Amino acid sequence: MGTTCGLTIDPIYRYVRAIVICVILLPCIQLSLGAKTRHFKWEVEYKYWSPDCIENIVMAINGQFPGPTIRAKVGDTINVELTNKLSTEGVVIHWHGIRQTGTPWADGTASISQCAINPGETYTYRFKVDKPGTYFYHGHLGMQRSAGLYGSLIVDLAEGEKEPFYYDGELNLLLSDWWHKNTHDQEIGLFTNPFRWVGESQSLLINGRGQYNCSLAAKFSSNTSISQCKLRGTEQCAPMILHVLPNKTYRLRLASATSLASLNLAIGNHKMLVVEADGNYVQPFEVDDLDIYSGESYSVLLTTNQDPSNNYWLSIGVRGRLPQTPQGLTILNYKPNSASKLPISAPPITPNHKMLVVEADGNYVQPFEVDDLDIYSGESYSVLLTTNQDPSNNYWLSIGVRGRLPQTPQGLTILNYKPNSASKLPISAPPITPVWNDYNHSKAFTNKILALMGTPKPPVNHDRRIILLNTQNKINGYTKWALNNVSLVLPPTPYLGSIKYGLKNAFDQKNPPENFDSINYDVTKPPVNPNSTYGNGVYMLGFNTTVDVILQNANALNANVSEIHPWHLHGHDFWVLGYGDGKFSAENDEKKLNLKNPPLRNSAIIFPYGWTALRFVADNPGVWAFHCHIEPHLHMGMGVVFAEGVDRLSTIPNEGLTCGLTGKKFSGQKN
Amino acid sequence: MGTTCGLTIDPIYRYVRAIVICVILLPCIQLSLGAKTRHFKWEVEYKYWSPDCIENIVMAINGQFPGPTIRAKVGDTINVELTNKLSTEGVVIHWHGIRQTGTPWADGTASISQCAINPGETYTYRFKVDKPGTYFYHGHLGMQRSAGLYGSLIVDLAEGEKEPFYYDGELNLLLSDWWHKNTHDQEIGLFTNPFRWVGESQSLLINGRGQYNCSLAAKFSSNTSISQCKLRGTEQCAPMILHVLPNKTYRLRLASATSLASLNLAIGNHKMLVVEADGNYVQPFEVDDLDIYSGESYSVLLTTNQDPSNNYWLSIGVRGRLPQTPQGLTILNYKPNSASKLPISAPPITPNHKMLVVEADGNYVQPFEVDDLDIYSGESYSVLLTTNQDPSNNYWLSIGVRGRLPQTPQGLTILNYKPNSASKLPISAPPITPVWNDYNHSKAFTNKILALMGTPKPPVNHDRRIILLNTQNKINGYTKWALNNVSLVLPPTPYLGSIKYGLKNAFDQKNPPENFDSINYDVTKPPVNPNSTYGNGVYMLGFNTTVDVILQNANALNANVSEIHPWHLHGHDFWVLGYGDGKFSAENDEKKLNLKNPPLRNSAIIFPYGWTALRFVADNPGVWAFHCHIEPHLHMGMGVVFAEGVDRLSTIPNEGLTCGLTGKKFSGQKN
Repeated sequence: MGTTCGLTIDPIYRYVRAIVICVILLPCIQLSLGAKTRHFKWEVEYKYWSPDCIENIVMAINGQFPGPTIRAKVGDTINVELTNKLSTEGVVIHWHGIRQTGTPWADGTASISQCAINPGETYTYRFKVDKPGTYFYHGHLGMQRSAGLYGSLIVDLAEGEKEPFYYDGELNLLLSDWWHKNTHDQEIGLFTNPFRWVGESQSLLINGRGQYNCSLAAKFSSNTSISQCKLRGTEQCAPMILHVLPNKTYRLRLASATSLASLNLAIGNHKMLVVEADGNYVQPFEVDDLDIYSGESYSVLLTTNQDPSNNYWLSIGVRGRLPQTPQGLTILNYKPNSASKLPISAPPITPNHKMLVVEADGNYVQPFEVDDLDIYSGESYSVLLTTNQDPSNNYWLSIGVRGRLPQTPQGLTILNYKPNSASKLPISAPPITPVWNDYNHSKAFTNKILALMGTPKPPVNHDRRIILLNTQNKINGYTKWALNNVSLVLPPTPYLGSIKYGLKNAFDQKNPPENFDSINYDVTKPPVNPNSTYGNGVYMLGFNTTVDVILQNANALNANVSEIHPWHLHGHDFWVLGYGDGKFSAENDEKKLNLKNPPLRNSAIIFPYGWTALRFVADNPGVWAFHCHIEPHLHMGMGVVFAEGVDRLSTIPNEGLTCGLTGKKFSGQKN
Repeated sequence: MGTTCGLTIDPIYRYVRAIVICVILLPCIQLSLGAKTRHFKWEVEYKYWSPDCIENIVMAINGQFPGPTIRAKVGDTINVELTNKLSTEGVVIHWHGIRQTGTPWADGTASISQCAINPGETYTYRFKVDKPGTYFYHGHLGMQRSAGLYGSLIVDLAEGEKEPFYYDGELNLLLSDWWHKNTHDQEIGLFTNPFRWVGESQSLLINGRGQYNCSLAAKFSSNTSISQCKLRGTEQCAPMILHVLPNKTYRLRLASATSLASLNLAIGNHKMLVVEADGNYVQPFEVDDLDIYSGESYSVLLTTNQDPSNNYWLSIGVRGRLPQTPQGLTILNYKPNSASKLPISAPPITPNHKMLVVEADGNYVQPFEVDDLDIYSGESYSVLLTTNQDPSNNYWLSIGVRGRLPQTPQGLTILNYKPNSASKLPISAPPITPVWNDYNHSKAFTNKILALMGTPKPPVNHDRRIILLNTQNKINGYTKWALNNVSLVLPPTPYLGSIKYGLKNAFDQKNPPENFDSINYDVTKPPVNPNSTYGNGVYMLGFNTTVDVILQNANALNANVSEIHPWHLHGHDFWVLGYGDGKFSAENDEKKLNLKNPPLRNSAIIFPYGWTALRFVADNPGVWAFHCHIEPHLHMGMGVVFAEGVDRLSTIPNEGLTCGLTGKKFSGQKN
């Protein structure tokens, strides 16, 4: 197998055809002449690290967290020899946003494009980068991305090519979220009945750096319990300061590898001009702040046109998730008042009643009086309550969560206008993140993203339309996510091998459902029948056909809950034809789809109770995951698998297929 | 490939030869006639569990912890279809004490007998049990044994056969130790520089049950901070009560799957008669208490001849390890006293000086006075000390560990004489575990273990003697264990496959060292040159030769430290020819070796600064691990690999070899 200029060629004719093709495609030759192969030798292992000033364990590459940044030029070949130095776990790395044209085996998705690399073994990822842009890479097995297996991948234009915008310098920010509970424990919770959820992340990280036990901006906070960070700058959690010169234009490359969080990014006093999304140019538009969902990347231009005697904040904050567990409340009804009479004051901050603690865990204790009582999991108490307050009122009894930050604090760093000292704090508080559920703000931003003129346009018609209803479900009491009532469970044999070799026992050969009962299903209510089924079938796409996917959001298991899901497609960019509220209607919504200048992307979100329409051409032989990029959601089944033109791949390297039924086949066993 | 009566036969001649052999070997046929194949379908996964009343995560089999007990008869075939339901980790199970005659691929040691089973995949262990006795099974990859992957395997005599002792009933106890820190984190600490050690286990478990936050025997304890357990009996941590009738004899089967702990077991008021060790009968001897090291098993006979109106304790406690971190001490030298003048009183329990706390973590605090101060990792304080005490004395400044149990508490359960209520507590305190470093007590016990008459005797002469110096070492600053200065790192390709297929790149083809510089090496001192090397070479043993192994203990890295190591051999029983103190001397010690009635075992310890002499016949074609059974020690390199007669294995199932270079070979790649 040989790959030349992005085309796959039969080995026997390789030499001759390569010459013919490259002579015909002159620009291609020019690229190839300047192109390099960039070699990397990486070792993945766990390492103690303090991403947010609290020591924990991260997945490191060559001892670094985040992993090393790959920087290449269009036309280059990336060659990463990845050695698994873990003790018991497999590992893979996915090159997020790279389409892997002609090299689907290098996509780095366990169970889809390859077997996980076993401990002690080395697998070589070798692929071309054919489009400039801001990308990243990350683990794609279990919760290894959440564990810190990620890094930046930046593709510059080929020598002599020019970006459609000007900038003086560049800053590269990889955003992520971070938990103190280890990812193995988090993952087991997902597969437990009743479901156990880790909750919101403890920290947000910018280039792997955050601060949990202090704040860079404490002096601007009304919360006096947060201390001002005193960092020397050499700590693993010290912020990466963004050094800039006044009156220049900088390209900020942003990518979100978060496990869960939807983020909003803002820079104090500065506007940003959005110019790139997911490795595609967009019609430039100016914003005060920017939403970035897991799996997305952007470039924004920042002009340092503010008072040069100050420094400024860059902040990221969580969007789209209720920031804290609300208090539990009941009413202490002083009879004969009506129980429905609300207390006259707010739930206790300064309570009216004292309590006398007399028993703990079945043992009498020396009685002592308290205003409030901490009660931890597994504990029991008896307290004596004397109803000695104004009998004309009722009173609140409240419980609230302790010992956990009520919400994930903002991630912060400083935009340092030189020659100011980097340690000079900005003069005002960091930008405030918009309210978590201000979806109008988010939609306004999303709707501004349109393709730059000259971007390829989508085919006018689709050959096939797959409608995917996104629902939260139950299977045997376990909480799952499902598409058209099928919750994805990946098989042990990678699809790329089982399809290529026709191993029909490797996965369900029936096509998964193309639609749901859209007439009767009420997307605004919890599912009437929440029971779902496991599945691992594949959407077999006709080669070179145009495929529409309508992602249809719905209500989750609890009433009045519908979450944002950022969907990511491997092996392709798609056109985002439009977003809408409620149930997608071919009749009403079809004509509103944007076929004029829809943005090309590899990631798109669905808003609560809304739909999103995507279109792509199935022109890349391989098997490709399409899934919610929230890591726990994917593991709870929120993904589907597309396959196209696998029969056109003359050779698939067996190196990545020595597991499952392909492994059995190679070793001469019966499948 | 077919296995008949324990012999491996070429498939083509199988039928004819099987008849011939079985006619010749009549007893073999008799066994086969009564023998069964016992089928098990197991799924391994992580599960929330409370082994010691504190919720944690265990490796469970079919949702159980410990795993299901296998009970079979001599001659039976065990058939376990093991499915890996983990998300990212491989898994294997080793059948500890089963020699796997003719089925070395079923030994369940990752990197040696097979590839780890990948997530989602199933591997079938199929092997014969050919010797009655008390065995167990456990994970043999990473720290999966410590994570709880273990269970009992009991082989009864074939129908009509009789044990050489009588008993009325049987009780089966599988012993283990348990940490609250998860095993992934523990393991990363082992591979960190500087070394991080998890410390002593939080609990000891009997059949997977212990009590951390309370004690069954609190009412007998002088420590009033420990509460009496109040368990209903249905809790996962409720002790498994041993119900017995008065004036009967019970066989207690004991096996230790501990990760670290050497245990001592005793039963209040009762003596025990030791009759079996590691699946071999021993000359019966009576003891008050019994040492059992990791990897060992025993049967003892217990006669319920005590006051039948009472219940009695069964206790296990830790031996051989310093039970707590000693205080750190320095002297506050009141000048002009000599600094060498010792304080007149013990280190502070009631201190002489008060301290005024004035600063915490770089912030001034409201000053407050204390007698002592808690300081947690990462904290800093300033305290003011006024030297207002008797100036003619010096004073201690001491630091001691807080928040951790100073030593692992005893594991306890109750021997319930029926018809007493099981909840009736014994009338006196549980048996006291001998002092941790009373090695004379341990040696006295060990030296009593001799083969029962009729046990096969060792060959009088050895063909080869391998002397293995056990040392703690450093490699690039990492703490390791080594044998003759080689620290074992297992390769990704299982030896059984790489030797069978002659894959010379799979491991170091040079023989590892047979000896050390025994003339100059001082085993009583830390190593002069602690630097060691990694290795993965194999001791290639001539088939059917008699091999002696002399395990030579030495001083660890710190002065005056030499640990107990329980060594376990796969694929064989060995004769334990003797134990001695100091350096083994062929001249002086050879003649003391016991060739008359040495016990046959699969595990043997080396005492601090001592040696142990073992002999076995290399008559079992396969590749066999020989290693310290302390799980962290094995992972730090404390093991060697023996191979014998691999060329005699006509067929090795490829099922377990689809990884590493064998996987590459099968898939047609170059090695």
